[in-house]
Amino acid sequence: MSLSVAVAGASGYAGGELLRLLAHHPELEVRTVTAHANAGQPLVSVHPNLRSFASLTFQETTAEVLAGHDVVFLALPHGHSGGIAAQLPESTLVVDAGADHRLERADDWQAFYGTEHAGTWPYGMPELILADGGRQRRELRAARRIAAPGCNATAVTLAAAPGIAAGLIDATALTSVLAVGSSGAGRAAKTQLLAAELTGSAAPYGVGGSHRHLPEIAQNLRAVGAAEVRHSFTPVLVPMTRGILATVTAPLIGEATPEQVRSAWLTAYGDERFIHVLPTGEYPRTADVLGSNSVHIGVGLDEAAGRVVMIAAIDNLGKGTAGAAVQSANIALGFDEQLGLPVDGVAP
Amino acid sequence: MSLSVAVAGASGYAGGELLRLLAHHPELEVRTVTAHANAGQPLVSVHPNLRSFASLTFQETTAEVLAGHDVVFLALPHGHSGGIAAQLPESTLVVDAGADHRLERADDWQAFYGTEHAGTWPYGMPELILADGGRQRRELRAARRIAAPGCNATAVTLAAAPGIAAGLIDATALTSVLAVGSSGAGRAAKTQLLAAELTGSAAPYGVGGSHRHLPEIAQNLRAVGAAEVRHSFTPVLVPMTRGILATVTAPLIGEATPEQVRSAWLTAYGDERFIHVLPTGEYPRTADVLGSNSVHIGVGLDEAAGRVVMIAAIDNLGKGTAGAAVQSANIALGFDEQLGLPVDGVAP
Amino acid sequence: MSLSVAVAGASGYAGGELLRLLAHHPELEVRTVTAHANAGQPLVSVHPNLRSFASLTFQETTAEVLAGHDVVFLALPHGHSGGIAAQLPESTLVVDAGADHRLERADDWQAFYGTEHAGTWPYGMPELILADGGRQRRELRAARRIAAPGCNATAVTLAAAPGIAAGLIDATALTSVLAVGSSGAGRAAKTQLLAAELTGSAAPYGVGGSHRHLPEIAQNLRAVGAAEVRHSFTPVLVPMTRGILATVTAPLIGEATPEQVRSAWLTAYGDERFIHVLPTGEYPRTADVLGSNSVHIGVGLDEAAGRVVMIAAIDNLGKGTAGAAVQSANIALGFDEQLGLPVDGVAP
Amino acid sequence: MSLSVAVAGASGYAGGELLRLLAHHPELEVRTVTAHANAGQPLVSVHPNLRSFASLTFQETTAEVLAGHDVVFLALPHGHSGGIAAQLPESTLVVDAGADHRLERADDWQAFYGTEHAGTWPYGMPELILADGGRQRRELRAARRIAAPGCNATAVTLAAAPGIAAGLIDATALTSVLAVGSSGAGRAAKTQLLAAELTGSAAPYGVGGSHRHLPEIAQNLRAVGAAEVRHSFTPVLVPMTRGILATVTAPLIGEATPEQVRSAWLTAYGDERFIHVLPTGEYPRTADVLGSNSVHIGVGLDEAAGRVVMIAAIDNLGKGTAGAAVQSANIALGFDEQLGLPVDGVAP
Repeated sequence: MSLSVAVAGASGYAGGELLRLLAHHPELEVRTVTAHANAGQPLVSVHPNLRSFASLTFQETTAEVLAGHDVVFLALPHGHSGGIAAQLPESTLVVDAGADHRLERADDWQAFYGTEHAGTWPYGMPELILADGGRQRRELRAARRIAAPGCNATAVTLAAAPGIAAGLIDATALTSVLAVGSSGAGRAAKTQLLAAELTGSAAPYGVGGSHRHLPEIAQNLRAVGAAEVRHSFTPVLVPMTRGILATVTAPLIGEATPEQVRSAWLTAYGDERFIHVLPTGEYPRTADVLGSNSVHIGVGLDEAAGRVVMIAAIDNLGKGTAGAAVQSANIALGFDEQLGLPVDGVAP
Repeated sequence: MSLSVAVAGASGYAGGELLRLLAHHPELEVRTVTAHANAGQPLVSVHPNLRSFASLTFQETTAEVLAGHDVVFLALPHGHSGGIAAQLPESTLVVDAGADHRLERADDWQAFYGTEHAGTWPYGMPELILADGGRQRRELRAARRIAAPGCNATAVTLAAAPGIAAGLIDATALTSVLAVGSSGAGRAAKTQLLAAELTGSAAPYGVGGSHRHLPEIAQNLRAVGAAEVRHSFTPVLVPMTRGILATVTAPLIGEATPEQVRSAWLTAYGDERFIHVLPTGEYPRTADVLGSNSVHIGVGLDEAAGRVVMIAAIDNLGKGTAGAAVQSANIALGFDEQLGLPVDGVAP
Repeated sequence: MSLSVAVAGASGYAGGELLRLLAHHPELEVRTVTAHANAGQPLVSVHPNLRSFASLTFQETTAEVLAGHDVVFLALPHGHSGGIAAQLPESTLVVDAGADHRLERADDWQAFYGTEHAGTWPYGMPELILADGGRQRRELRAARRIAAPGCNATAVTLAAAPGIAAGLIDATALTSVLAVGSSGAGRAAKTQLLAAELTGSAAPYGVGGSHRHLPEIAQNLRAVGAAEVRHSFTPVLVPMTRGILATVTAPLIGEATPEQVRSAWLTAYGDERFIHVLPTGEYPRTADVLGSNSVHIGVGLDEAAGRVVMIAAIDNLGKGTAGAAVQSANIALGFDEQLGLPVDGVAP
Repeated sequence: MSLSVAVAGASGYAGGELLRLLAHHPELEVRTVTAHANAGQPLVSVHPNLRSFASLTFQETTAEVLAGHDVVFLALPHGHSGGIAAQLPESTLVVDAGADHRLERADDWQAFYGTEHAGTWPYGMPELILADGGRQRRELRAARRIAAPGCNATAVTLAAAPGIAAGLIDATALTSVLAVGSSGAGRAAKTQLLAAELTGSAAPYGVGGSHRHLPEIAQNLRAVGAAEVRHSFTPVLVPMTRGILATVTAPLIGEATPEQVRSAWLTAYGDERFIHVLPTGEYPRTADVLGSNSVHIGVGLDEAAGRVVMIAAIDNLGKGTAGAAVQSANIALGFDEQLGLPVDGVAP
């Protein structure tokens, strides 16, 4: 018998992708969707692609509406998850696709969000290598509150973590530049996100250390073993709807051949079903992970520059948001981790 | 009376852009266009956008056809310019939009191109700051052979040079990631350049120190004053036709405020008509330079990471290729440097 | 126990999409993939998105290699299917995603393809309304040879058929203009299909009655009941990878209200799981069907012009090619028609 | 000595393109730019591409600010031009890039805009063939009030007019489907115009006879000689910033060869500098007119369908809006019609 699911904030892009994935999940059944401005409207009026849910109508986002489901996914603007979650039974699995419960340090939250910290939940990145050699996955088993990671944080963390864990790269001189699709900016109507502004253009934002995924990445890399993280991080909006291509570089520590470098990633991710380390000399494209929960990673050694180049491709709404939420829920609920999650991208 | 011009290799994208700019040049008149496979065809059959040249037909690319013009622009595949140029009179201004004559060190050429070096010509980047505080422009006055820069080299060099000249950044720990439009890859029919492959995707290439613009950039930065250059350089194809957005970062040397950092760029480019240093906190978009000879540069200081972030946007076919060629020719011929060159981009 | 499947011509876009769908099919298991130029290479070297098939290698496309499978999908260039199919046992289900066996009239084939006609197979468009009120589906049950429809033919046929069947529109004055994604042109490296050529541009092709899907559409509309079909058909390549938006118009016969018009489509497709007739005043977008087997149709009446406007959106590789092939195979094999076929598009 | 120019509503896309063109106009000098929400801001903060106007700041849009210029271009939302224009001296040349003064029939205005009609000004489409064989150009000479055409109206009118004037096509059975770039929808922040919504998708709007350019097109075609116009018109937003590709079809009246058909367009536009009738069998692409004032037209005869197919490509902001405004101003002021107007598109 399926477990019952509610998705709060289902009118946004993250909420829509959660629904798209859950439509194929054999053990979870979406019963309730909530929204704010769209409450009262049919779901397909906002997500015409989601024909599987043609019978659903958005309800108001309240604890009363969400209560009584086995699993609640929250896809709310930051600052809204804590209050709702506090009113839900502890036995309900709550997965927050938003930022509220990702950070461990309240001062990080304060510095980057400027409001009071809602607290820290187990972090929904199962593949994260921990400093003791374990995986974040063990924290998620039987958890009833889970914070799904940020999309950019996922791409950068999974690209860099094996190098840090293996002592191969210097985390105090990291630089990341990300080509990101515009769905990551959400559905709010803003002039700078208009198609006329972004089509045919590459445009950076959040430059110079202000991006809110920075403390999350640093926290992840410390968990992997970095004593200190210094990280230059620049996302660039490019004319695609979905996708993140993170190009991360860091100085090589000591000496290594390209194959020795790459073998650290192979070792780290050898058993992971959603992480694919590409052959030597190959690098990922975002098209290849579109709509999937997969991460493609290419690793190279630039010997002249003394730098390791780590490039990861994800779908920001897939593995970057909704996929990680479903994957983490699968673990928490004791299901096969892959239920409902495609590994094959929609290409071309 | 106008000077007569021939464009060799006019069937490619660089050649086409040269023609588009020259159509508006008040002192230069295109009389002859040559091509290889398209010889004998009307120019507009290959470049339907170039209605100004509806009467021209491609001729064969031979020294005989090119001789007798005051100015010859070469937009040929690398390896083809030297032989042709050697057969043209020394009094003819020859501007090579290709790579053959850019590099000063024959061993750089050999290492990255694997053929014999054709020799070094004055380098067509007028705004390049030299170590003595002068500009590359002085080498171009009255020159009769000019090598126009590579497009990626232009973006990275102009982004980083003021920081190096001012002693603000460490050239031994440079990283550049470029979002590049697909016209930079040229017009050859290759599967990986198909619209179905590139639309909706971000895809790196030339990763890990193999890109041919690396020695050119290093040469430029040494000219500016860098004792040693170590540079991690990763271009990423993104779904746009034109444009390069180069995100260059390097460690800050010593201490400085963001405004002190930015003032180095303002000082360096204050008088340059084609280089626009954006206000503090603003960064460029490629759309804003499309079709123009302008370079937009934003500079920031990431204090937490200890890095200067320098972002430059150019049109790879404009300032990145054809614009630089025309600008350099203007200088060599004693014309106003701006003749025929738009400063305003075609946006949105 | 799963049935064994081979996909011939699996290196192209249609073949890749067949594999992506079959990866989720609970009753079919891909054992063999064949290709021409790529024979001997790992499948993921050509389709890096298809991680589910990381263990497969392309074999040569021969009858020997294909024999011994329960189901063979052919995704070959036209002209190649007939010879291969003739060598396969009659008991093998062969689904041809190419054009060879779609047309009923040998002279149509001759006129549009110029070669000898390979013969006619049952046509894999289950939802096609027949003149007697039945569906094409009945022809597919237990068929062992199936010709999957052309992508443009699918969009136009499904848009217009209910109007013709209901006697509402005049099939002798049809006009269709299609916005089509470039994956429909296949993976061959052609200059006019380069990203630099198609990005940012709309470009018609096959104008004026020459497109090869014209006789197929006419055949379909005759099956629905049209005595005569005259059809102006213009596909326009637009900068997207996948998708067809077919705008079909025809004169209204007699008088009707907009709701009366629309009700013909509702009646025709009421039970179809993959066809979604949108509410009055709404029209489809290709993004909403991306990666799915769904068809979204909006129907309006332009009273001033006296024309019915029928707009259909499909994914050219999904319902337009691979989806229809799998759907038809499901019917032929007695499976649930929806096995392996998503109804929800990947949007945004 | 240059004439002084003010551009009202200069913060929008049409206003920005007017400025980009006027920057190169040898006889017109922009002194004043006005805006509504952006009043008080530097022009380059809204149009970072327009470096030529780095010294300008938006002023309020009032008659006082606009008075005292020789030429005033209005790029205001519809309904705002009439009031402003009434307060400007009759000797000032006022060119309205908006809709207010295009329509001749007050009831057309009322039906499509729902407000009071502001009156009719000479129509700024110089190339429009009139029923007496003359051109619209004669009305513009010495005019002091000009209504620039709508972008879609320009594409459809110029595509179809020669066929109607020559009696070759039936204007009571016209169908037009247009692939249009999103800049035509303006700069207002609307969810359905977000890049995440439009990238990778084709989406119709204004379907079924509701589009506001319909009465303008009908008026134009009547001026050309059509006794009655019935016109099915469907614009489709496609993922490009600029450009309109209008595919217009109509039944052929009587008999004609393809060359006879095409010769009507050659005859009609033989002397026009901005209209290029392509060779037989060639059709236009929007990329080829980007940033220009050119119109590329391909004409074919679909003999099987009995239809003439007329395809026109324009830049919606160029010839579709700002280019036509400048061209018409040139005529009114007695200048060479081509001043400031590029004929060559920015491609690729």
